[in-house]
Order: sequence, then structure tokens, then C-alpha cells
Amino acid sequence: MPKILVLHGPSLNLLGQREKDIYGTMTLPEINRQLEELAKAHGVETEFFQSNHEGALIDAIHQASGQVDAIVINPGAFTHTSIALRDAIAAVAIPTVEVHLSNIYQREDFRQKSVIAPVAIGQISGFGVNSYILGLKAALSLVGLQS
Amino acid sequence: MPKILVLHGPSLNLLGQREKDIYGTMTLPEINRQLEELAKAHGVETEFFQSNHEGALIDAIHQASGQVDAIVINPGAFTHTSIALRDAIAAVAIPTVEVHLSNIYQREDFRQKSVIAPVAIGQISGFGVNSYILGLKAALSLVGLQS
Amino acid sequence: MPKILVLHGPSLNLLGQREKDIYGTMTLPEINRQLEELAKAHGVETEFFQSNHEGALIDAIHQASGQVDAIVINPGAFTHTSIALRDAIAAVAIPTVEVHLSNIYQREDFRQKSVIAPVAIGQISGFGVNSYILGLKAALSLVGLQS
Amino acid sequence: MPKILVLHGPSLNLLGQREKDIYGTMTLPEINRQLEELAKAHGVETEFFQSNHEGALIDAIHQASGQVDAIVINPGAFTHTSIALRDAIAAVAIPTVEVHLSNIYQREDFRQKSVIAPVAIGQISGFGVNSYILGLKAALSLVGLQS
Amino acid sequence: MPKILVLHGPSLNLLGQREKDIYGTMTLPEINRQLEELAKAHGVETEFFQSNHEGALIDAIHQASGQVDAIVINPGAFTHTSIALRDAIAAVAIPTVEVHLSNIYQREDFRQKSVIAPVAIGQISGFGVNSYILGLKAALSLVGLQS
Amino acid sequence: MPKILVLHGPSLNLLGQREKDIYGTMTLPEINRQLEELAKAHGVETEFFQSNHEGALIDAIHQASGQVDAIVINPGAFTHTSIALRDAIAAVAIPTVEVHLSNIYQREDFRQKSVIAPVAIGQISGFGVNSYILGLKAALSLVGLQS
Amino acid sequence: MPKILVLHGPSLNLLGQREKDIYGTMTLPEINRQLEELAKAHGVETEFFQSNHEGALIDAIHQASGQVDAIVINPGAFTHTSIALRDAIAAVAIPTVEVHLSNIYQREDFRQKSVIAPVAIGQISGFGVNSYILGLKAALSLVGLQS
Amino acid sequence: MPKILVLHGPSLNLLGQREKDIYGTMTLPEINRQLEELAKAHGVETEFFQSNHEGALIDAIHQASGQVDAIVINPGAFTHTSIALRDAIAAVAIPTVEVHLSNIYQREDFRQKSVIAPVAIGQISGFGVNSYILGLKAALSLVGLQS
Amino acid sequence: MPKILVLHGPSLNLLGQREKDIYGTMTLPEINRQLEELAKAHGVETEFFQSNHEGALIDAIHQASGQVDAIVINPGAFTHTSIALRDAIAAVAIPTVEVHLSNIYQREDFRQKSVIAPVAIGQISGFGVNSYILGLKAALSLVGLQS
Amino acid sequence: MPKILVLHGPSLNLLGQREKDIYGTMTLPEINRQLEELAKAHGVETEFFQSNHEGALIDAIHQASGQVDAIVINPGAFTHTSIALRDAIAAVAIPTVEVHLSNIYQREDFRQKSVIAPVAIGQISGFGVNSYILGLKAALSLVGLQS
Amino acid sequence: MPKILVLHGPSLNLLGQREKDIYGTMTLPEINRQLEELAKAHGVETEFFQSNHEGALIDAIHQASGQVDAIVINPGAFTHTSIALRDAIAAVAIPTVEVHLSNIYQREDFRQKSVIAPVAIGQISGFGVNSYILGLKAALSLVGLQS
Amino acid sequence: MPKILVLHGPSLNLLGQREKDIYGTMTLPEINRQLEELAKAHGVETEFFQSNHEGALIDAIHQASGQVDAIVINPGAFTHTSIALRDAIAAVAIPTVEVHLSNIYQREDFRQKSVIAPVAIGQISGFGVNSYILGLKAALSLVGLQS
Repeated sequence: MPKILVLHGPSLNLLGQREKDIYGTMTLPEINRQLEELAKAHGVETEFFQSNHEGALIDAIHQASGQVDAIVINPGAFTHTSIALRDAIAAVAIPTVEVHLSNIYQREDFRQKSVIAPVAIGQISGFGVNSYILGLKAALSLVGLQS
Repeated sequence: MPKILVLHGPSLNLLGQREKDIYGTMTLPEINRQLEELAKAHGVETEFFQSNHEGALIDAIHQASGQVDAIVINPGAFTHTSIALRDAIAAVAIPTVEVHLSNIYQREDFRQKSVIAPVAIGQISGFGVNSYILGLKAALSLVGLQS
Repeated sequence: MPKILVLHGPSLNLLGQREKDIYGTMTLPEINRQLEELAKAHGVETEFFQSNHEGALIDAIHQASGQVDAIVINPGAFTHTSIALRDAIAAVAIPTVEVHLSNIYQREDFRQKSVIAPVAIGQISGFGVNSYILGLKAALSLVGLQS
Repeated sequence: MPKILVLHGPSLNLLGQREKDIYGTMTLPEINRQLEELAKAHGVETEFFQSNHEGALIDAIHQASGQVDAIVINPGAFTHTSIALRDAIAAVAIPTVEVHLSNIYQREDFRQKSVIAPVAIGQISGFGVNSYILGLKAALSLVGLQS
Repeated sequence: MPKILVLHGPSLNLLGQREKDIYGTMTLPEINRQLEELAKAHGVETEFFQSNHEGALIDAIHQASGQVDAIVINPGAFTHTSIALRDAIAAVAIPTVEVHLSNIYQREDFRQKSVIAPVAIGQISGFGVNSYILGLKAALSLVGLQS
Repeated sequence: MPKILVLHGPSLNLLGQREKDIYGTMTLPEINRQLEELAKAHGVETEFFQSNHEGALIDAIHQASGQVDAIVINPGAFTHTSIALRDAIAAVAIPTVEVHLSNIYQREDFRQKSVIAPVAIGQISGFGVNSYILGLKAALSLVGLQS
Repeated sequence: MPKILVLHGPSLNLLGQREKDIYGTMTLPEINRQLEELAKAHGVETEFFQSNHEGALIDAIHQASGQVDAIVINPGAFTHTSIALRDAIAAVAIPTVEVHLSNIYQREDFRQKSVIAPVAIGQISGFGVNSYILGLKAALSLVGLQS
Repeated sequence: MPKILVLHGPSLNLLGQREKDIYGTMTLPEINRQLEELAKAHGVETEFFQSNHEGALIDAIHQASGQVDAIVINPGAFTHTSIALRDAIAAVAIPTVEVHLSNIYQREDFRQKSVIAPVAIGQISGFGVNSYILGLKAALSLVGLQS
Repeated sequence: MPKILVLHGPSLNLLGQREKDIYGTMTLPEINRQLEELAKAHGVETEFFQSNHEGALIDAIHQASGQVDAIVINPGAFTHTSIALRDAIAAVAIPTVEVHLSNIYQREDFRQKSVIAPVAIGQISGFGVNSYILGLKAALSLVGLQS
Repeated sequence: MPKILVLHGPSLNLLGQREKDIYGTMTLPEINRQLEELAKAHGVETEFFQSNHEGALIDAIHQASGQVDAIVINPGAFTHTSIALRDAIAAVAIPTVEVHLSNIYQREDFRQKSVIAPVAIGQISGFGVNSYILGLKAALSLVGLQS
Repeated sequence: MPKILVLHGPSLNLLGQREKDIYGTMTLPEINRQLEELAKAHGVETEFFQSNHEGALIDAIHQASGQVDAIVINPGAFTHTSIALRDAIAAVAIPTVEVHLSNIYQREDFRQKSVIAPVAIGQISGFGVNSYILGLKAALSLVGLQS
Repeated sequence: MPKILVLHGPSLNLLGQREKDIYGTMTLPEINRQLEELAKAHGVETEFFQSNHEGALIDAIHQASGQVDAIVINPGAFTHTSIALRDAIAAVAIPTVEVHLSNIYQREDFRQKSVIAPVAIGQISGFGVNSYILGLKAALSLVGLQS
């Protein structure tokens, strides 16, 4: 049974509680549940992890090596700064889909540069919670499933 | 019946005929057919237009005003240079999804900047033909349909 | 009888229909009519042309060579990108007045650079429809008439 | 009776005496007289002030607050450097028209950037003394008069 | 009896009269009075000077040499441009505290660079009138008093 | 009883032990004690936290949400790099005062840019331990107390 | 019989009529005739196309695919801006020689960058009409003929 | 007995398991063993620590203060981003040798800048596992031993 | 009898009183006296003016027009910022020698750019008071005298 | 009898011996012989010089003054750095053709800038040994011969 | 018997005689002797060459082709400017170790960029004379010897 | 008897023969003679050296060490590129005066940056042959003589 790891970067634990006008009212557990169901419907197992610690996300990626068929990651603020995260993704060589709730290209200059994108298969940005759904569908496709 | 306009920028007419290692073997008519079927399955009409002429794409966007509920656009090389295309999208205010076959963030520096992205709802990049499929699904969602 | 060519760049055909808060409620035909009347009052013939096609604008400028005494141009989005348009103006050497409805120096960084300005006699920016009126008056002056 | 303040920046007192090939042969008093007459013909009072002192120009703008309906300013060299002048204009919130005799976009790089433009209503550049005339007409329009 | 000089840069004379949403409703005399009282309570004399003239501020700094124990300065727009002001502060070597009403790091790019900061002891920015109070307290501390 | 959280970034645990010429001889516990007393004198509770882990600081900020009325933070080296810290502060929307012991504008170029400043109320830099005292006073003011 | 396509970009139709001091007195038909004769002498067929429309040039390149053995192109102003033209050349993979009448490295900064050069075999710049002749000879060589 | 601390940054735990073409087939424990033996042969104690957590590396550096005579560090991805790591090294003032397996000057632009180098004694880059050996030898020399 | 105007910019009135290690112990009056004597020995009249006001220096330059044969100017901090001063020098077209006490190319980056130099005949920098002497000799030469 | 000097910059003596995949298998003497024959066929004398010493190439250019009618130069690595070479070419004012074996616009960024180009008549780049042949033909044309 | 060439760039002949605080008191002959002995102890022949002439160093590298198994080079000031030296190293394809006495990353900006590094196997910087020793050891390793 | 070395960089041997409009009609021997006489009149010996070889100029500077009391250098094109020349001057620590015939601040951007200036005592630029005379006078002053 294929397995997809969904990673959430810093402050995404606050989803649905703060800055709702930007990020919507759905909480992270609710988003995870929705993704889990969609994956299950395609016979795919999911695992979820959120951390505000760059090192913890890197540890999780390392541990996924050989255990997981694809990664869907919303790197949050680490999108723009974490070469360490980028290197971890490149090192384990698990196909990775980068997602963003907001359209990062409508925001501050420094948010318009992703250091993760060059090591991801692709990037989906700007569709709110639907970015995660589309990202999961992209990941399903990467593991050979039609969504 | 909702309607979605799918726009293809310059040289995308050559899809499946040239540079197959980068862009795959599926031709543009084949991609359009696949999108048309997916849309029809959701009760949505589609219209397709490809042009190597920036002006023709702008004309098409203008004419879509009031006729079309969402746009899926792969602006090709105009992604990086056409402020005129950007302004046309902003002017008609039709929700627009920007898609790219290749991961533009793995390519030359000048391809990593989209002047279209700030006026699109969101951007999907790097999943090959699947970028179009995901883009259409994003558009279906924008017109209130669940894909 | 002197003749002045008034050129409108991409998406200016939508004037008065879209983004009225930025560009006002007057349509392009209405603007043209007002300019035509003002010119006629000074014994000057006018010609009007709008296109979303850079090439069509260049063709129009070429054809104006030897036929027209001055050009008033609102290059729209081509202001910031079209070296081809710039070269056409420089080539025909017809005195040209560049006008902008909005104050381009209050907008995005990329709109604050005009590649047309160095080949124009002068530039008028920020006065709404009045930019066209003032531009025509500048052109009348260039052809030796007092407005 | 509406009132318009016309401000001239540093070295503009030398107009018509020096660098005539660039700035023409008309002196500043002659320009002021021409503007005064045009304004008077529209029932508008004018006031004129030239200074080589940035502080004196700022003082004049402050004193105009509540006394003047519009400002026409040729900031000269301060165009490119004086944030203090910019802030003064922004502070008093009098509608301001920025004018330049020469086309600043045909000159040195550092002259192509106006720090004043973002707080002005609009900018007129390149028409010689006619820039002042067009600027005054723009100002008349701003105070509700048709020129 | 120690003495502290409080300097206000260009357009700060308009405080409390204009742009109240940004700078508050307290006038400059009111701010000065509040500072004077606070200083007096610590046995410190104060002197106040505002000017829109860079040269006048430099003159005041020169004259303070040997007369004043510390300077609190809000350089206003000169913060970003006046190397002459910076050099005057460096020359007289009076300990100087730089203050700003607004948080200059939330404003335009050009306002985020202070040419004064490198010659000041420290900088306080963003607390409205309280920036002056805190600045005076910092200055009191610099002259050996506990606030 | 209002509560203020005081956060210290990486290597600030070494204060008073190392690089005493730059940062002084007072240790972090001593600074905390001084701040605690000053706050207590104004009827305000304080909480202190230092970490070399960016994630731990973010966790602390999240946990402060709804528990704390203001934050005083010396982000240390994270000042210049941590968008994640910035986003955490923006997300919890607790009024935050940024402080620095040294004048960061007299140091290396990369230290002159704070990514935290745009989400803080204000910034105090350069007064040694007094920066903390002034920062706490600013925070007291933000929670409605006069210091 | 080998075939070479000669493409001329915007405003090159004006050759010999305008700006003769820069571009010489020979008209485009005259240049074409000279090239045609030279090619014919080597048993090579030629085809000529000029357009002010970027899209028309791209169309021509697409149509040349499989029909033409080499391209000689003077992209004019599109040299510096048209990624779409570049992509068209890269897509059809016909060996292409880029030529310029003037030495683009003696002109404005923006003219010193060719976005076409990286997809051309080589570039010839600065020899007036002789650039075309040398370019054709280079193309003859590319199709295996000695000129 | 002198002691040398060897620090390994993020993802270096994967050495010998992943991207072997770039980083070789030797695992981290094997490298550590080789270094340990070389040090022991010179009568020097070694300690090894790898972490994907920037904060953990900083903690380790702080704890080394007064316990360790030299540090050999391969900061991995933190080389290019971690000012916090840099400050920790500067704060404890233990002589530090920076090593890199690959030649960072042959890689992406962002990898060619080390923020650690200015606080290290020196840098060794590009010799594979031998970079560690040479680095240890440099460290032995720094503690007064001839290797 | 030829006449040379010697202009001193902001804070140069403090020469010999402050920062003596950088600028030496000679006061401005002493320097002026030395220059006056040297000029007199060559039959040249001198005039001296120092101001901290940019506008006053510009006024002085304007008044020198037609009265003075050459200018020796140490623009001080205005060297790097005052386009107004530059324009005044260019406008009156009096041959001008720019001098600096310190070697501005050994100082901060912003001091290494003179906006005055392009309108001066030449520049002399780094020889202390001797820069003035050499500058006067250069000026004597410009008015046709051998020093 | 006209004479053309052919200059080869550093490391071009290794042609045909090293990096044959980039530069081909023809040696420098072979290239020179081919050029010599072509020139002779047009009644033109040739002289050849290669050096790894910038100064020796400059000396050769100086000595060519008055002796040589045109120069064909492949400046090799000096293309991108040697202003001295550029000045020598400008000083002797002999018409010069710059050639490159490889297409420098497909290589590293620093190779895409020629400091020689602005003083050459024109540049030919990317045609392998044929660049020399075409360059010689261009030179023949410059000395009035038809190739 | 393997052979290693040691190259010293400009002004390194002055080692031990000048700027001893930066570069130490050991002279170049002394360094060479030490390297020679170390090499001999490993059965490796050495050759030494110092020049202030870029061309002479390039000639030496060319002559080493086929004669030498590895190069240790301290390019001195040419490190930052000599693309010709870089190309020579790349052309002969002899494994090369770049060494620097001082830590170039603690010095002026322009010294922090090596144009040689991308063609070297690796770089050793900052260990004084020990940089040469470590560099030689690295070279020994490159020729298959264990140091 | 004090001795001054006068160094002339590349192409200065052509002085008076070429580009006379820029550099004047006086030849290098004539300039040298004039300098020699002036020096002799002050009891100072002179030595002159011109080379187009950077290495030869560096050799000359090295040989001057301990033999010469001051250097007057016109580095020509090496002004802008030769860090090796700069390092040689810094190494021998002979007081050096940098001179330029033309005003380098009125020329191309790349000529406005001297890499030599930071290691020279001072710079004199723009006075034609008089730059040398003034430079020698500055040097006389540096060796304790009054000119």
C-alpha cells in the first residue's frame, strides 16, 4: 500500500485560528482529515507532521526515506530560507510536491522566491486549502494513481 | 452551463512533436481532448485557443469577458515578459489559473519569474500534462464545482 | 492641413468598461471624439488606432511616416517592454508625445520605467483623460499651433 | 478666487541666461508672466517663488497650506534627491503638478528617477517652457476649471 | 546642570496638524513641553529646535558643541539623505539618540535606511510620541542619570 | 494582571561571559531580574525565555497567544534571517518590541537588516542593557501603563 | 537542394529609407537580392520574410520546420526581449545564425544583451550589410557548403 | 590532553547512503572513526556530534566552551544561512576549521557564500573525506601539534 | 586681475578644532590665509566662503558668474549627494577644481562617489591641506598662470 | 599590398591539443596556414602572433600601428578582463574584428561580456574555426576587398 | 617518480620581508624548502616557480602539461581577476590545489571571490604557511599517496 | 638625495602620437623631461619607467623598495583592474601618488573605479599633463620638500 507523507512548516498549526482572512477557517486537523480521506479512497496511506522546528522537519524527511512514496510539503516560512530542508529533500530523493495556501507571488518580494522549488517535482500555489488537495492529487499521480 | 477557456501561449502548438524529452509526447489536440472530457464530466463547457501572437491571446481574453467563468492559461514564453497579457487578465477579472508543464523553478533564471502570477488566482508548475489537469480541477473549484 | 495620429496600446479598448476606479468611466470612442473636436477646432485632422498587437501599432507608425505631423501615444503595457515600438518611433522620426492615464510613478516598480520616453519629445502622466487632452495640446504646439 | 502656487527649484533663476541650448532663451520672469496671464484669463490668482534652498521651498509649501488650491512645481535638481520636499508636499496635501523643461528620461540615469512624482498628481516632462503652460492647465483642471 | 538638545527635522513643525492618522494629534510644542518637564524632573535643561533647512540643523549642532551633553534628534526626511547632518554629528562628538515616530521599517524602501544611525549611539523607532520620551530617557542615561 | 514575555535569541545565554567589550558584563539572569523588578513595580508579571532553537522561540510565541499582553524580543542572529519567527509574531498578533544591545547599524551589512522589524511595533537598538529597559518601558506603554 | 530562410525583425522594412547614417542606404529588397544571388551561386535556395509582428516571425519559424536547412535571422529589437522567438528557434532545432547590422556592443546597455544568442549557433554583429553576407556564408557552412 | 570537537551539519548523517556520486561511499561513523584514530595518534581526544537542528549545534558549541581546544566543522547547508551558528563560534572563541566535502565554488551560486568563513581560522573545501583529514591536521596544528 | 573663489562645504568650519587626527590641526582661516598668499604671489585675487547650507553655496556660485575666473571647491558631504550643487557649477560654467583633504577612496563606500566630479575640470584627493594648495595651483594653471 | 594582423590570446596555442570537444582538432598553425592562404588569394599579406602575455599582445598592437590595415583578434580570456588591450586597440585605431571559436553567449556569465567589443568594428562568435575565416573575410572587406 | 609543481603568484616573492604581521616571517625559499622536503619524504619530486607576470605563470602551466602530476598554486592577486590563468589550468587538466596564506573570506569583498576555485580540485585558505603544507598533502593524496 | 620613481602604465608610450584630442600633443619623453627638471630644481632624483606589462610594473615597484622615497604612477588601464599592482604598492609601502591625464569621472562607468586609489596617498585626475606636475609636487611634499 503506497504511503504519502504530508509535512506542514512553521506556524501552520495555527491555521483556522489566526489570520483567517488570509488562510481561511479550516484547521490543520480538518485539512489533514480531508486529505486522509481522499488518499484512503485511492488506497493510499497518509502520515502527517507539523513542526516549527526546521530540524524536526529534516529528521522526518530522513526517516521517510524508504518508507514513503511521495511527500506533499507546505514549507511555510522555510520556503524562502531553508537550504537545509532543500538538501534533505534532495538527499532522500522522494518525489515531493510543494504547496502553498496563498499565492506567494502576490506577496512580499522575499516570499516570491522558493529555495525548495528546484528540488520539488512541482509547485502549487494560491488555491487555499485546495492547494493541498491538488497537491495530494499530484502526489497520487506521481505514485502511479489516477485521481 | 459554466464555461472555461483554456489558453496556450507561443510554440505550445508544437507539443508532442518537438523536445519530447522535456514536454512529453502528447500533442496539444490530445491534451485539449482530455481536458474537454474532464470538464464535460463536470457539466462544464470548454473552449481552446493557442496562438504565437501575444495580441491574439489578449483579444481572446477580452472576448471572454462576460462569456467565460474561468481561464486556464499556459502563457509559455509570455509568462516572463508580457505585461500586456497580465493587464488583460487583470482587466477582465475572470478567475485565472496559470499552469506550466515544466517546473519553471528548475530552469534558467529568466524563466523563474512570472509576470502573470500576481494577477492569477494561483499557479501550478512542473507536473507535465498533469499540470493542465490539475489546473482545470482548480478552475472547476473556482466556478464552484468539486472535482 | 496638419494631421495628428493618436495611438492606444493594449487593453485600452476596455476603457470605461473595466477598472473604472483606476481609469475612469469615459470610453475610448468618447475620448477619441473629444480629442477629435479639440483638434478640429485648431484646424488639425486626427486619426485614431487602438490595438492589442504590438506589430499592428508598429505597422501604423510606419504607415504614418510622411503622412502625419505628430503622434500622441498611450503605449499601455508596451510602455515598459516594447523596444520594437521604441525603434519604430525613432525610425520614422515623427514628433511623439507619450501619455498615461494613471501616474505610473505611483504604481508597481516595473511600471515606473518607460522604454518609450527616451524617443518621445515628452511625457504626460497621471491626469486621467486630461493626460490625452494635454498630450494633444503638446502635439498641437509641436506642429506650430497655439492651444 | 482660486490660487495656484508656482515653485521653481535650484538654478532655475538662471533660465534664459545660461545653457540656452538646453533650456531655451526665455527668462524666469518671462515664464512667470506668461503663466500669470494664462491663469488670470481663467480667473485664477498665481504666486511665484524660486529658491536654491531646499528649506525655503519647504517653508513655502508649508505656508501655502490652506492658502493655495494647487501647486505647479519644477523641483530642478531636488527632483532626484529631496525626500524632505516630497514629504512637505505629502503633508500639506495640496494637489501638485510636477513639471520639467527637459525630457528627464533622455538624460543621465540619476535624472530619470523623481522622488517627487509619487506624491504629485501627475508629471509633465520634456516640452520646454510649454511644460509649465501644460502644467498650469493641468492645475486649472485640478481646481475645476476647463483650460 | 546637564543640558540636552532636542532637534526636529523637516515638516515636523506640522505635527498634530496634518497626517494625524500616521503621526498622531499631539503638536510639536506639546511634545517639547512634555520632554521639557520630564528632563526638568531629572534636573536636566533642554533646548528645542526645529528646521526645514538642513544647514540650520547643522549650524545648531555645531553651536551645541561644548554646550550640550546629549542630543535627541528626529531627523525626519534627512534621515535617509543627509550625509552633511551625519558628518556634523560625528564632528561635534556629542552623544546622540536618533528617534522616529513611525516604524521606518514598515514604510517605503528608501525610508528603511538611516544614514544617521551609524553615528548615533542608538535608534528608537515606531512608538509615536513615546519614541521621543524613550529617546530622552536614553539620553538621560547617557549623561549618567537614571530615568 | 498584565503579563509581558521577554524573549532572548541565540547565544544571548552567554551574555556577561563572553565578548564583554561588545555586550557588557551583566549576565542574562541579572538582566532578567532587573526587568522583572521594573515590571513588578508597575504591577506587571513577566516571563523569560532564551533559546538557541528558532523552533523553540516560535513555540513560545505560539503559547503566549492569549496569555501575554506584550512581547519584548531580542532576536539575536535570527533578527536577520528568520522569516519563521517573523511569521509567528505576525500570527499571534501580540504587540512586540524589538530590542538590540548593540547598534546594529554600526555593524556588518547583513546585521543592518531586520526581518522582524516590519512586524514589530517598534525597534530600540544600541543602548546596551538599557535597550531592554527602554524596550520594557515601551511595552508597558503598549499595555496602557505609564513608565 | 538545400534551403536557407532569412528572417528580418521589426522596422527592418525601413532599411535604406530612414536612419541611413546608422544602417546604410541599401534597402531590404536589395539586401535580399544580394543574398539570394550568393546562395544561388552555391546551389542553395533562399526564402525571405520580414515582419513587425513577433507572432508572425514565430509562425514562420514553425513552418520552416522540416522545410529549411538553416536560418539567418536579424531579430532587430526582438533580440533583446523575445523569449518567445528564442523558444521557437530552440523548438524547431534548425541551425540558426544571428546577425546585426550595427555593433550592438557599442549601443545602449539594453541592446548589449541578446536573448536569442544562446539558442543560435553563432552571432555576427557590426559589419553593416556585410553582417548578412557573412551570416549567409556561415549558414552555407552549416549546411555543409564551402563559401 | 587536548580535545577537538568535530561537528557535522544537517543531512550529513546520510553520508555514504545517498548521493554517493557527490559525497562518496564512506559513512559518517567511518569518517569519525578515521578522524578519531588520527587524533589519538597525536595524543588528542576527539568528540563527534551531528545534528539537523541548528539550535543543537549551537548548544554543542556553547558547551564546548572551556572544554575543547579546537573545532572542526562541516556546517552543511547552514554554511550559507546560519548567522546564529556564526555568532556562536565567534562567542566561544574556540579556533575553528571549516571543511566541505565538495568544492562549494563549483556549485550553485548560493553555495559559494559561507557566512561561517569570516569567523573560522580557515576553510578547506573540495577534497571529499580528505577535507576532514586535512581539517583535523589543521586543527592539530592550531593546538600546537605537528601532523 | 584674475580672481579665484574658494568654497568650503559643510562642517569644514570646524577644521583644526575637531577630528584632528583625520583632518589635521590647521584651521580654516589659516588655510584660507595660506591660499590667499600663494594666489597673491601670482597676482591673483581670492575670495573665500564656507557654508553648511547647500543653498548658500549655490547662491555663491551663481553670484560668481562673470566675476570669477576659477573655483576651488571642497564640497564636503555635499560631494556625494548634491546634484543641485553640481547643476549650479555646470550652469555658470566657471572652471572648477574639486579638492578633498582625505583620500575619499579609502573611506566608506558612499564617500567614494562624487556627483561633483563629472562637472569639475579635475579632482585632487588625499593630501590634507596640501590638496587645497595643489588645487589652487591647478586653478592658477586653468587661468593661464604657471605655478 | 594590404596587410592583416591575426592575434591569438592566452592558451590558444593549445588549440587542437586539449579540450578538443569544445575547440575542435585543428591546431593553431593549421588555422594560421588556412587564413594565410585565403588572404594570399585576395592579395593580402598576413602576420600571426599568439601570446599568453597581455603586455606582449599590446606591444604587438602598438607595433602594428601604421604597418597593418586591419586586425583579426581572438582575445581569449582577455576578452572579458583586459581594458589595457581595449585601450591599445582604440589608441592605434586600426579596424579590428573580434572573433571567438565558441559561442560565448552559451557559456558562463562572465564570458558573455566582452570589454573588447565596443572598440572593435564587429564581433563574430560561435562558428569554430569558421569564426576565424569569417573574421578574415570581414577584415578583407574592411580593407576594401570583396571576399 | 611523481612530480608536483608549486606556483606562487605576484608579490609572493616578498614573503617574510614585508607585511610580516599578515603573512608571517618565513621567506618564499624557506617555504619551498619545507615543501620540497615533505614531498621528497613521500618520494615525490617538486618544482617551484614564482612570477609577477600572469603570462609567465600561464606559460609554466602549459609547460607542465604531461610533465607534472599535480599543481599547488597560490595565485595571489590573480585569484580574483585572472580568467586567463583559470583557462590555462582548465586546459591542461592537471589536478590543481588552490592555497591562500590568509583567510580570504575575512578580507575585502573583492578578495572573497576566486575565479580559480571552480577549476581547482579544492581550496585551502587561512592557515598561513600551513596552507601550503596542507595543500601539498592534498596534492599528494591526489597523486595517490597517503600523507 | 631623495629619489622619486615615475611609472606609466599601458599605452602611455603612445602619448602625443595618438588620440591627441583627449591626451594632448606632448610625448612621454617630453613629459618625463619636464618632471625631471622640476624634481632636479628641488634637489630630487627621478627615475622613469613605462610598460604595457603589468608584471614589469610590479617588478619595478618591488625593485624600488628601499631605493625610492615616493612613487608617482599613472596606472592607465590597470587603474581599474590590477589588484596585483595594488598589492605590490601596498607591499613595498612607498608613499604613492596616483595621477590621471583625463578626468576619469567623466568617462565610462568602468573607468570611474580605481582599485589603486585605496593604497595610494592621494589621487589627482583631469588636468592633462599638469596632473603629472601636480602629482610630482604632491610627491615632493611627501618627501618633505616644499614645492
